[in-house]
Amino acid sequence: MENLEKKIEQFLALDLKGYTNNFLLTWEKSDAHIEATQLLTEIFSSMHKNGRSFRAFEEGLAISIFRDNSTRTRFSYASAANALGLAVSDLDEEKSQIAHGETVRETANMISFLADAIGIRDDMFLGEGNRYMREVSDALDMGFEEGTLHQRPALVNLQCDIDHPTQSMADMAKLRDYFGGVENLKGKKIAMTWAYSPSYGKPLSVPQGIIGLMTRFGMEVTLAHPEGYGLIPDVVKLAGQQALESGGSFKVVNSMEEAFKDADIVYPKSWAPYSVMKERTELLKNSYTEELKTLEQNCLVHNAKFKEWECTEEMMKLTKDGEALYMHCLPADITDVSCEQGEVSKSVFDKYRKHTYEEAGYKPFVIAAMIFLARFENPKLKLVEILERNKDRF
Amino acid sequence: MENLEKKIEQFLALDLKGYTNNFLLTWEKSDAHIEATQLLTEIFSSMHKNGRSFRAFEEGLAISIFRDNSTRTRFSYASAANALGLAVSDLDEEKSQIAHGETVRETANMISFLADAIGIRDDMFLGEGNRYMREVSDALDMGFEEGTLHQRPALVNLQCDIDHPTQSMADMAKLRDYFGGVENLKGKKIAMTWAYSPSYGKPLSVPQGIIGLMTRFGMEVTLAHPEGYGLIPDVVKLAGQQALESGGSFKVVNSMEEAFKDADIVYPKSWAPYSVMKERTELLKNSYTEELKTLEQNCLVHNAKFKEWECTEEMMKLTKDGEALYMHCLPADITDVSCEQGEVSKSVFDKYRKHTYEEAGYKPFVIAAMIFLARFENPKLKLVEILERNKDRF
Amino acid sequence: MENLEKKIEQFLALDLKGYTNNFLLTWEKSDAHIEATQLLTEIFSSMHKNGRSFRAFEEGLAISIFRDNSTRTRFSYASAANALGLAVSDLDEEKSQIAHGETVRETANMISFLADAIGIRDDMFLGEGNRYMREVSDALDMGFEEGTLHQRPALVNLQCDIDHPTQSMADMAKLRDYFGGVENLKGKKIAMTWAYSPSYGKPLSVPQGIIGLMTRFGMEVTLAHPEGYGLIPDVVKLAGQQALESGGSFKVVNSMEEAFKDADIVYPKSWAPYSVMKERTELLKNSYTEELKTLEQNCLVHNAKFKEWECTEEMMKLTKDGEALYMHCLPADITDVSCEQGEVSKSVFDKYRKHTYEEAGYKPFVIAAMIFLARFENPKLKLVEILERNKDRF
Repeated sequence: MENLEKKIEQFLALDLKGYTNNFLLTWEKSDAHIEATQLLTEIFSSMHKNGRSFRAFEEGLAISIFRDNSTRTRFSYASAANALGLAVSDLDEEKSQIAHGETVRETANMISFLADAIGIRDDMFLGEGNRYMREVSDALDMGFEEGTLHQRPALVNLQCDIDHPTQSMADMAKLRDYFGGVENLKGKKIAMTWAYSPSYGKPLSVPQGIIGLMTRFGMEVTLAHPEGYGLIPDVVKLAGQQALESGGSFKVVNSMEEAFKDADIVYPKSWAPYSVMKERTELLKNSYTEELKTLEQNCLVHNAKFKEWECTEEMMKLTKDGEALYMHCLPADITDVSCEQGEVSKSVFDKYRKHTYEEAGYKPFVIAAMIFLARFENPKLKLVEILERNKDRF
Repeated sequence: MENLEKKIEQFLALDLKGYTNNFLLTWEKSDAHIEATQLLTEIFSSMHKNGRSFRAFEEGLAISIFRDNSTRTRFSYASAANALGLAVSDLDEEKSQIAHGETVRETANMISFLADAIGIRDDMFLGEGNRYMREVSDALDMGFEEGTLHQRPALVNLQCDIDHPTQSMADMAKLRDYFGGVENLKGKKIAMTWAYSPSYGKPLSVPQGIIGLMTRFGMEVTLAHPEGYGLIPDVVKLAGQQALESGGSFKVVNSMEEAFKDADIVYPKSWAPYSVMKERTELLKNSYTEELKTLEQNCLVHNAKFKEWECTEEMMKLTKDGEALYMHCLPADITDVSCEQGEVSKSVFDKYRKHTYEEAGYKPFVIAAMIFLARFENPKLKLVEILERNKDRF
Repeated sequence: MENLEKKIEQFLALDLKGYTNNFLLTWEKSDAHIEATQLLTEIFSSMHKNGRSFRAFEEGLAISIFRDNSTRTRFSYASAANALGLAVSDLDEEKSQIAHGETVRETANMISFLADAIGIRDDMFLGEGNRYMREVSDALDMGFEEGTLHQRPALVNLQCDIDHPTQSMADMAKLRDYFGGVENLKGKKIAMTWAYSPSYGKPLSVPQGIIGLMTRFGMEVTLAHPEGYGLIPDVVKLAGQQALESGGSFKVVNSMEEAFKDADIVYPKSWAPYSVMKERTELLKNSYTEELKTLEQNCLVHNAKFKEWECTEEMMKLTKDGEALYMHCLPADITDVSCEQGEVSKSVFDKYRKHTYEEAGYKPFVIAAMIFLARFENPKLKLVEILERNKDRF
């Protein structure tokens, strides 16, 4: 609890000015705002562990729009909403329908009259997901300015084509805890590497989220993938700039071994090549079913050339003292468990399973922190009020 | 807030005796009960705008039964339930199954043991929707009388084949606000007119709801539609009687121009002809798929003869000072936006878009008011209690 | 209310030590724990009837996993969760997917970070449902011990292949009320008998739940079914042992008449033969669609040989004074109502309909009691706290 008090003090000392109603990309947030979200994540998690309620609303809706399937994020969002005192209401669109323009503007307002938060997942179409979120954001701003909406709901990106901020922020929370504080991350080497999986079309948002966030804390970040499996160029460029500014480093290599060498942290995870995702988006938009099948087959055959990109015990021996922290956003494709050959060997996964669970366990609190900071004009005062109320959860 | 206090005073002065547990048709409600629902809508909306909670339940379920798709009404209902302190639980029936008799009686009771409200949408089958609601109502009455149910849930019509009271009451709330009070509606001319849409089978409940409600306030109500697009004869007859009693007028014409002439308010909206809806209901009941397709095609071809029934700027010039209030239940079929040619031109819609959003924005509060009035033995006392509690929403 | 106070006193006097976080099979629970659940069911029901809140949580999630369709149990669970202050979040698995091993362990943890209860229905596959629940239970224990989960959610069996404890406990609550106390059940004769229904593949869990629970109270329990329609042998054996220990009796007969003779209570209900369920499970696992159709047809033809197994007025005359209590878990297959010929005649059902509704009405409170007892370290203290709080539900 001493630790908790210190975190509260740190939070109250931060400069929260300029915090917007949205959490769409981590790199749009100032260092202080990232720190605020992290500290609040830890504070909420700690309160929950101690049976304390951090309920902030008497009532209100938290709307979810899942344009792609999701179990974990869905439950994380429901957990966050519930803990804050909001009820989840899901907008069940036809998945195939990529609404734009008037429809988005109208729907965004129609569902928001009594909404305090909106969480959106839309990660399947390159160039679409984040753009859709910004259309919703503009519609909400307009509705609030016109007075149609009595309040501007917080808007949270639950994964788009560019970033997956609730994941990367949960990953960061795990790292802070594991290494004993954000100050200890300076100089740590993290390998964000592609890994083989007998699947196809996995989004780029997780690796992009990692390099887009971890390059801000003075870490040595290596992105590794087979040739042709690059990410969105703008995000790669941004990672390089951020690394420079934070006093860390960023490089892209085409070898898993090179990335693992002396790494403190490894994050082996499959994704589709940027070029394939672009082609796929066009085909999906035009409903070219046959061409999509062909693309998938070609892609799977091509993937299979890189089966050696697997996080095995052998590979782990290359890391710092052979003891790097293994991370994954889950579910991992585990060799001999979920597939014949996958991203990680059973023994490596088993050794770090508890850590991956803990990593995931931060997500509900990350989302709660994001909504809290976006929704309250004075989040510090609100937190103090909640702490002084000192209410048990049951 | 002065305005709010005045409304509270007015509400407390009303005669609420005889208010039943159901809100099925506006014309079953006394003038005082309609006024109570309107005032409470305004009071709740005002409280919400000022960040005040009007939560009335510590816990409880609000059950929804949507036999037809709905996004807006679904969210309005969820918003109303949540604001009152109830959790939504959706009964997901197979849409094709039109249960009757024992099944309805049993299911109605089985889902209601801890329910405080039930909202039903069932608007596709002429002669069915409202009848189904009354079966549910009877089952609930029986369950409560027998003691199986500890409480009689409020039953709210979220759109049936006859009326759409949550819509017409929201429309009314908008008119009261726009014209500065119900007393100013006397003598106002409203045109409820059919409009062209490249669709088929739209329910009759909106126009019926409008003529069934607006004829009670001394307004000059004109219903306009092409020949053959008549509404349920009983509702048309009722509208005439009510207009007579309220000191207003009601007429049916076959020209949009005639209806728009000098109108203070226009409500151009597509619907299917009564006769087609009757035929369609029979075909649907018997699952005559082929015949349904033929009916749809014939109907669309027939509709296309009336493409000039569009609310254009030209048409709007016919209205009072060219500045009538344009209303719509949304989503509207907007020419060049949602379709090639539709109910309203883009420029007219854009000019009044904000007003249509506000119109829709009353619906959550209308539903909350309906549940509140139906569920509490002494709604006045309950409101005073809530006002004195004076709790912030966050 | 005097009655309520007596029940509270009795509850507070019980030995609740050793109550686990799970309610999976009634026969795993001690007599004191069964009595505690029954008393709490009555206390909660009574409080609800009197408009008192028994909310126990400020917030929290109650997760539901329905691997089979369900309306009644779904609403009972939602009602229980809501009354305790929890929000329902449904895990919507693909129904066909019978996950095991790593996936179950991971998913169970991923959805439980902020969960206070998990309810599972999985009754279609012999040897699978209960086993799945125990896998979830082990995963939750592990997660809690490792510290990944801040709390161990209560786990409630909402029907498996072996038992249907929320149903049998609701049935028991009805019997206690009907006969004026559990002490009056001693010596009462109950006939749990198979009945004809034009359906196929109904689970065995209801009859197994009844003989597994009712044999513990000194009742004379008769299980009746046509030859070949036996239940899981282990459960039948257990029923015999329990009857012996409780000073009652248990026998299996192949005649509905024999079972009805002098019965105080009859429970006529269709189920599939154990052997068919075993074969069906294998075929389903292997997706043998054709063989499943053949099995269904054969089974329906075979069933039809036992159409005389119907609870008619004639049959009821055989019971104690012709006035035995008719019970059913609902929905019943009623002759001339839900089918041409079914489990029970219309006149018998109508006479006892109100009783079957009341029987069902206990289920929300049974589930609430199960969660309450499983989740709180000191349920007595918690109940006293709730009673002293003395809060109205609205």
